[in-house]
Amino acid sequence: MRLYQYHPSGNCYKIRLLLNQLGILYEKVEIDILRRESRTPEFLRINPNGRIPVLEVNGRYLPESNAALYYLAQGTRFFPQDRFAQAQVLQWMFFEQYSHEPYIATIRFWVAFQRSAQKNADEIRRRMPLGYAALDVMERHLSQNLYFVDNRYSIADITLFAYTHVAEEGGFQLSRYPHLQAWIRRVQQQPGHISIEN
Amino acid sequence: MRLYQYHPSGNCYKIRLLLNQLGILYEKVEIDILRRESRTPEFLRINPNGRIPVLEVNGRYLPESNAALYYLAQGTRFFPQDRFAQAQVLQWMFFEQYSHEPYIATIRFWVAFQRSAQKNADEIRRRMPLGYAALDVMERHLSQNLYFVDNRYSIADITLFAYTHVAEEGGFQLSRYPHLQAWIRRVQQQPGHISIEN
Repeated sequence: MRLYQYHPSGNCYKIRLLLNQLGILYEKVEIDILRRESRTPEFLRINPNGRIPVLEVNGRYLPESNAALYYLAQGTRFFPQDRFAQAQVLQWMFFEQYSHEPYIATIRFWVAFQRSAQKNADEIRRRMPLGYAALDVMERHLSQNLYFVDNRYSIADITLFAYTHVAEEGGFQLSRYPHLQAWIRRVQQQPGHISIEN
Repeated sequence: MRLYQYHPSGNCYKIRLLLNQLGILYEKVEIDILRRESRTPEFLRINPNGRIPVLEVNGRYLPESNAALYYLAQGTRFFPQDRFAQAQVLQWMFFEQYSHEPYIATIRFWVAFQRSAQKNADEIRRRMPLGYAALDVMERHLSQNLYFVDNRYSIADITLFAYTHVAEEGGFQLSRYPHLQAWIRRVQQQPGHISIEN
């Protein structure tokens, strides 16, 4: 397998984390999105949507980080067997891409990587409360559950962990979320866990 | 089953369409999002994220339209059997929620339902090119494929059809997309198809 990725991206980290926990060896290809390398004609043949990550499996390309997690987790302990629980895992993965990533990940990208916080000040002001709304939903769920689905670590946790645990790099304060912080520690203690730097 | 929904929403229509094609009887509960009925304390007990649709199955609540489609399609002709094709279906469903819905659905909502196009003029100007970028990706794929995955109608098509076929209500011009228009007609000719009004 081959992973086309930009290393600091949480969407790419998700896949590295799961690959490590599954013990799967793979090759990394760095795509520098700051230099728009995901928008070259060459890369658009790999993913016409011009985004990383893309997982290459036997010469076929799979874009969308959460689709890659889903593919890799099939038949493993990282995806439940019960049909309703499977749908709940996907529920949280769609929540992450729709209600969490566009706010928490995007603000972190502007602030910590693109260094464009000033240029994007209005957008940051608009998106910050929406990021906190996502964290509120997570905190409420984690006040009654150890993990997102069936009290077992799954790809729902991997997905939500990726940008949540580095949300402070974008300026979010996690100190007001005790259950979320405890869940971050539980995720970090999973066998085979690696940090986003790895 | 019970569907908590706002009838004009494409995210709700997706589920009605699949339920009809599967021949499943269900009850509808209307939640008027224009009156913020998805943000009442009562509704937040059903979905803490305050969004419709929510599918109720045996007293349990499943938010996120695409998670509901996934749940309903398991073991049916609307979801492929091959593992990589399954991941590709999810790839397009995540594409829809991340790269398509926030632009095409949101602009339609402002223009055609909330009547707030003037108030949101700046946001519409920002989002319009991103909506067209999603339509471009779809057109490119459909120029070489009858449907999104394996040339067979699946929940990937249902997901993308929901807001694409009414994109003009938000001001998008579909006339420049011949392959996309032909795909819309193919979807509309599927057995058990119902329109968004139904």
